[in-house]
Amino acid sequence: CTDLSRWRGPLNSLKSDEAASGPKQGPTFQDGQRRVDYVLTYHVQKPQSVRRKTSRFADYRILRSLRRSLSTMRSGGTPPSKEDPEIAAHKHRLDYHEDDKRFRQTEFEDNLREVGLELEKDEGNKIPGIGFLKIHAPWNVLCREAEFMKLKMPTKKVCNVVERINLFIHKVTAPLHPKVEPNRPQNVKHLSHPFSREKQHLKFDLLKMTFTGITSLLGNGVYTAAYPLHDILYEEWASYSVFYKYQPIGLIRKYFGEKIGLYFAWLGVYTQMLIPAAIVGVIVFLYGCATVDNDIPSMEICDPRNNITMCPLCDRACSYWKLKTACGTARASHLFDNPATVFFSIFMALWATMFMEHWKRRQMRLNYIWDLTGFEEEEDHHRAEYEIQVMQKTLKKQDMSPKVVKGFLLSFPLQIGVTFAVVFGVILYRISIRAALHMSSNPTARSNIRATVKGTAAVINLVIIIIMDEVYGAVARWLTLLEVPKTDKSFEERLIIKTFVLKFANAFSPIVYLAFFRGRMVGRPGDYVYVIGSYRMEECAHAGCLMELCIQLCITMLGKQLIQNNLFEIGIPKIKKLIRRRKSDMDSQQQEDYNMTLERHEKDHFLGPFVGLSPEYMEMIIQFGMVTLFVASFPLAPLFALLNNIIEIRLDAKKFVTEVRRPIAARAKDIGIWYNLLRGLSKVAVIVNAFVISFTSDFIPRLVYQYMYSPDGSMHGFVNHTLSYFNVSDFQPGTAPLQPMHLGYEVQICRYKDYRETLWSNTPYDLSKEFWAILACRLAFVIVFQNVVMLMSDFVDWLIPDIPKDISLQIHKEKILMVELFMKEEEGKKLLRDNHTNQSPFQPRSRPASHTPSKC
Amino acid sequence: CTDLSRWRGPLNSLKSDEAASGPKQGPTFQDGQRRVDYVLTYHVQKPQSVRRKTSRFADYRILRSLRRSLSTMRSGGTPPSKEDPEIAAHKHRLDYHEDDKRFRQTEFEDNLREVGLELEKDEGNKIPGIGFLKIHAPWNVLCREAEFMKLKMPTKKVCNVVERINLFIHKVTAPLHPKVEPNRPQNVKHLSHPFSREKQHLKFDLLKMTFTGITSLLGNGVYTAAYPLHDILYEEWASYSVFYKYQPIGLIRKYFGEKIGLYFAWLGVYTQMLIPAAIVGVIVFLYGCATVDNDIPSMEICDPRNNITMCPLCDRACSYWKLKTACGTARASHLFDNPATVFFSIFMALWATMFMEHWKRRQMRLNYIWDLTGFEEEEDHHRAEYEIQVMQKTLKKQDMSPKVVKGFLLSFPLQIGVTFAVVFGVILYRISIRAALHMSSNPTARSNIRATVKGTAAVINLVIIIIMDEVYGAVARWLTLLEVPKTDKSFEERLIIKTFVLKFANAFSPIVYLAFFRGRMVGRPGDYVYVIGSYRMEECAHAGCLMELCIQLCITMLGKQLIQNNLFEIGIPKIKKLIRRRKSDMDSQQQEDYNMTLERHEKDHFLGPFVGLSPEYMEMIIQFGMVTLFVASFPLAPLFALLNNIIEIRLDAKKFVTEVRRPIAARAKDIGIWYNLLRGLSKVAVIVNAFVISFTSDFIPRLVYQYMYSPDGSMHGFVNHTLSYFNVSDFQPGTAPLQPMHLGYEVQICRYKDYRETLWSNTPYDLSKEFWAILACRLAFVIVFQNVVMLMSDFVDWLIPDIPKDISLQIHKEKILMVELFMKEEEGKKLLRDNHTNQSPFQPRSRPASHTPSKC
Repeated sequence: CTDLSRWRGPLNSLKSDEAASGPKQGPTFQDGQRRVDYVLTYHVQKPQSVRRKTSRFADYRILRSLRRSLSTMRSGGTPPSKEDPEIAAHKHRLDYHEDDKRFRQTEFEDNLREVGLELEKDEGNKIPGIGFLKIHAPWNVLCREAEFMKLKMPTKKVCNVVERINLFIHKVTAPLHPKVEPNRPQNVKHLSHPFSREKQHLKFDLLKMTFTGITSLLGNGVYTAAYPLHDILYEEWASYSVFYKYQPIGLIRKYFGEKIGLYFAWLGVYTQMLIPAAIVGVIVFLYGCATVDNDIPSMEICDPRNNITMCPLCDRACSYWKLKTACGTARASHLFDNPATVFFSIFMALWATMFMEHWKRRQMRLNYIWDLTGFEEEEDHHRAEYEIQVMQKTLKKQDMSPKVVKGFLLSFPLQIGVTFAVVFGVILYRISIRAALHMSSNPTARSNIRATVKGTAAVINLVIIIIMDEVYGAVARWLTLLEVPKTDKSFEERLIIKTFVLKFANAFSPIVYLAFFRGRMVGRPGDYVYVIGSYRMEECAHAGCLMELCIQLCITMLGKQLIQNNLFEIGIPKIKKLIRRRKSDMDSQQQEDYNMTLERHEKDHFLGPFVGLSPEYMEMIIQFGMVTLFVASFPLAPLFALLNNIIEIRLDAKKFVTEVRRPIAARAKDIGIWYNLLRGLSKVAVIVNAFVISFTSDFIPRLVYQYMYSPDGSMHGFVNHTLSYFNVSDFQPGTAPLQPMHLGYEVQICRYKDYRETLWSNTPYDLSKEFWAILACRLAFVIVFQNVVMLMSDFVDWLIPDIPKDISLQIHKEKILMVELFMKEEEGKKLLRDNHTNQSPFQPRSRPASHTPSKC
Repeated sequence: CTDLSRWRGPLNSLKSDEAASGPKQGPTFQDGQRRVDYVLTYHVQKPQSVRRKTSRFADYRILRSLRRSLSTMRSGGTPPSKEDPEIAAHKHRLDYHEDDKRFRQTEFEDNLREVGLELEKDEGNKIPGIGFLKIHAPWNVLCREAEFMKLKMPTKKVCNVVERINLFIHKVTAPLHPKVEPNRPQNVKHLSHPFSREKQHLKFDLLKMTFTGITSLLGNGVYTAAYPLHDILYEEWASYSVFYKYQPIGLIRKYFGEKIGLYFAWLGVYTQMLIPAAIVGVIVFLYGCATVDNDIPSMEICDPRNNITMCPLCDRACSYWKLKTACGTARASHLFDNPATVFFSIFMALWATMFMEHWKRRQMRLNYIWDLTGFEEEEDHHRAEYEIQVMQKTLKKQDMSPKVVKGFLLSFPLQIGVTFAVVFGVILYRISIRAALHMSSNPTARSNIRATVKGTAAVINLVIIIIMDEVYGAVARWLTLLEVPKTDKSFEERLIIKTFVLKFANAFSPIVYLAFFRGRMVGRPGDYVYVIGSYRMEECAHAGCLMELCIQLCITMLGKQLIQNNLFEIGIPKIKKLIRRRKSDMDSQQQEDYNMTLERHEKDHFLGPFVGLSPEYMEMIIQFGMVTLFVASFPLAPLFALLNNIIEIRLDAKKFVTEVRRPIAARAKDIGIWYNLLRGLSKVAVIVNAFVISFTSDFIPRLVYQYMYSPDGSMHGFVNHTLSYFNVSDFQPGTAPLQPMHLGYEVQICRYKDYRETLWSNTPYDLSKEFWAILACRLAFVIVFQNVVMLMSDFVDWLIPDIPKDISLQIHKEKILMVELFMKEEEGKKLLRDNHTNQSPFQPRSRPASHTPSKC
């Protein structure tokens, strides 16, 4: 770094910075000095003479291609990796295959050395058949790159009273902060040129540039794997014992890169925001518990004096029943169906908006702290698969565009088709199961049917959801592959959207069914609606649908999270690891001894590859859906989500640190498409909650009864008002109960829950005026609720600025500093030139970085 | 500019650029060489010795303040203009007043000269009592400033097939393009440093910096006016004969600055987008005309065989009437109330979204072309009024914050209160006028009442709207002044929001009343709703409210635009000009002769001051509201708006060029708060249209009748279905018609338009089941319509990228070029340093600007 005297200061500080945060005894080369930055693995064959080919491969120089790659990367052009699959296609003779691999390896390694990287081979020392190519990026190489990229210079932040208050807050909350970070908010912010990079990234950027061709080399089997090394475990993060602490986001970002850093920051913000939601949710639930004894409708249902005989809930097998048997359900329903729920769903809609705003601000702050304000996503490279496809088509002299278009056209309806087919399949399955249970000829079992069905249905659903989740993941991938997206980014986005649609439909279809369809289109006694021959649509017990919705939500949330967390996130990687070890044919004792002798990079070889953040985000976004969409019917959802997330953070941390190979640090400014999905969800949540309140709960009918029909303005008589009359002589032939004397007396008129004309009106069993009045009120409530909440959300959105005030001020100040710096530099240049023409002796100029720091 | 050798190239090109676009013979100093860039006017007093005060003013040096102002402006600190009002407050002795003015003038002028500006005084030559201070900014001063700011360097755009297609399109549309611009899209785009400025702006920025204190000088009467000069008129823009041409936006921006340029660009985009809307609107209207003879409901109303007797429309004075007299109204209503209207309002909702998107893209493109991508709004200066208030409070040893808070708290409810009071006042006024007309004892006049009322009501409304518009403008300003906003920007924004709310409420309250309230809460025969004693709520004729809504919209749009355009925008400035001339006491002949002798800057003195763009935007945004909000009831609105805007563009152009003093060019990146208002309007439009379709029009009742009640699935019998029965014996005492035999026979049962129970039901006159069913359908339609249209809008929003593809590519390329340039410069610097240390003779480096241009 001799020629970079002016940058030495900052570079040195970076070096020491790295020394502080980096591992004290990281894996090194055999000399114990040079650190291993990156590892490539390959299969070791019997030694073969490296023939330099004079065939048509001679004119194809990977070396040249890589050099070009380096230069085009810098100027932002398209990488020349396009040519690699071309060779792959030309190469058909199998006898050349191994030779070619070896040849390309040598070429590649030569090139790495030429760029200045240092290599060390470790062939089949302990793991037979696998060779390791350890790569070290020496300091001077990074320095050279730094020269191109301009490093940042430290400058001082202005501190003020606010800062002092912050400091005080920081002191108070000290136990919540992880111990790894300096126990004081950093006062020094680095001022950077728009195109400056940090050293950490410089290193990986350099490696990435050099390895532009590595994807195709991996694809062709020249190398078997490529990964940077795991350094250390962070006791202060990836441990359940520190669940109450803030995450060391700065360190996470240094270790894993911005993309993963942003994920954990987002997860942190989400979990933090869940705390108030959970508290309010619990209060709402407690309010329900406290008022359950004063609820007149459930009192009326439970009152034995109201001797109401209800119509049978299924054909033939079921008989008449007493309303007071629904007493328990009615009381339990009140817990989730009371006026506080309306307040809570408005609260949660605003909460979702606040959360999005809060995250936008946090992201902006992180962007500023992490120096991403000037960063733009790099142009995306074409996917190898796409290129191969293009190449194949070109070879076959076919135009490829029709196929791609066909794939596009095919995949969208297919996607929708698959979703709907399975959703309806599950519903039909549920109905038929239910019907089969009801139809069972064993009369003693029938009494337990309700309980059995309620308990098992949710569990069956859960199992189906979890199984289908995996299936859908594969379907989405398959559909996306059909489309052959052009770039990695578009591949990822399309995959995410498809997976989201499918998994979301999977997770929510039973809930939506329960909330909006179950017990709606059942018809009426004597004129039931039948689907597929003779299956009657499911009915709810009095006030029972909401209860079942709650149970379903509860089981889905708890079960899905527990099973998916434990089984899939912990279990499966462990099993995979085990299988990978099994392949190396050793028993467990041997294994352990062997493990002890392994070096870091060799141990990492056994870890699973990093599969991206999509599954983590997906899990969280579906949880976000549960928390916001049906919160009106289940106020405890935020609490469940909070408890899960506290575990989830540490679980993910553990997984990333110990279970998978350390991913290559990737830059990202934001959480990308996930933000849009979250926004979409929080918009949909408003309308869904409006419908849950007005259609699933009894909130509106109660209000209407109280203000339009009640004789004394109280709720007394509400239950009677909701029940219509049915003359048992009007049963369709063959649907009347087999045991009409089940209750011990002959039933002439039974009641059912619906608003229909009385028996003595001109048009008995027609929908009554009350039905239409209540429907109109329900719909009016939806309109009012939706628009009021949307207005309030927009207001909150408008009220909270997207960029925190202090950050925007700071950015403004930095811009001015930049201009000053630039001017000084220009002046210095002029001075230098003047000096030169005057032939005066060279005087070392003051560094431009050392401009006056604002006083604290 | 000798020391700027490397910038000379670009600067020269800029100079020639200015020579090309600037005036050939602009107003100059007396030497005919130096151009007048800015003019200050002041009152000329009898000569007075300029006493240098040794009092406390001596230590307050404006000079120093201005110098500090210049430096703080550069470093972005707060300007020291804060101190100016302080002097103003200290200065109470009147005898010092004139002296002080003269003293401050001299100080100020000295300072201007010190900065390097050249001044020429022109005292009372032709206009007695008024002195002109002409200011010229010499080339070398601008060069010096340029050094600080870094000028941009030309670079070549890559041209491709798309460009050729564009060229072809451009050739085809050549007659539409104004002749002033080079008749080919510019192929050369300037690459600029983030903080570069254009020379034009440099000049005005420099002047603005220097004149930071001018506001307070103007406020204290030291100078009477400050304005840059009008150069030339643009025949290719400010003329009605070129109405079909595109606007020369580039030139407008050069002449008036970005802020006004953006206004005209926005107006252009809006007008352009109105063309498809107007075409579709006309088609929808024609569809209505074509199908009017096939409309069964209006056929039934007009059919004399349906001898339906209707109940009287007012108490006592009115009598029974035949339904077939409403034939004309019913037929006319069909023109605006047919299924095509539903399609049209969906179309217009999407149109509004498309318009917003289109404008975002256009704005982005203009930002790129005008080099505003890196530009940030400068920090705002405190308003003089605010400072004075602060200063006064400080003097009175009072804390000012309570007053400000009180102003804040006071103004918001006041604002809402005023709005509502006047809205209700107007409605009550309408009702009472109507009632008075009905109550007139002259029986012959009563037959003409309907026609009279319909015709006059809209006109009266229009007059009220126009008068109240001016009143509201003043009220908004007064309310904003009460709040004492801190900065000019916040003052402007608050004023705009207040004015918008008031003017919007004013323009739309009669329309909203007609659409949603008129004829709703009228009660029923025998049980009418009365307000304020005995005024019955207004009723509509059968299908009449929609027709009246149309008439109201039509008259408001046409009348408001014609009157406000002609009277206020052309007439009043002319009158003001006249009055201003009158003040100089000359007759018209003298005046004309005198005018000939006047120089440009003297002529400009008689022009009105530029009052900002707010009135122009406000007018357009209210028009946008008319076009989108009630488009469901008036599909011709876009056509009217289009015709108005074609005139409006040229009118505004004429006004800006000839009627007002040339405004100081102001920079702006976007249209600011107006964009938010437009967005808000287009959101509100969706819900308003949903309500207009479902509640104002008969669309839903017809659908419901056809599918639920019609015996044969046709519309036959619809009219009869909508009418309820009333037994005339149930009239409340004193409300029965005075002339029950008006129709020639005795009426036992009359009909009225409502869904109520029949006479022979248990509960006659109660709302019927049909009422509730139709209400539910109406509400369901609102929910479906709103959510579907919102979804579609969001989809369109998501589909159209905010930044045009070519612009984002270009920006990306420029960033890479910047990095290259920077690197080259760094290398050059190193080379220079190396040369220096080697003591080799100085070699002129290649300019960094001359990097290889990409080949076309």
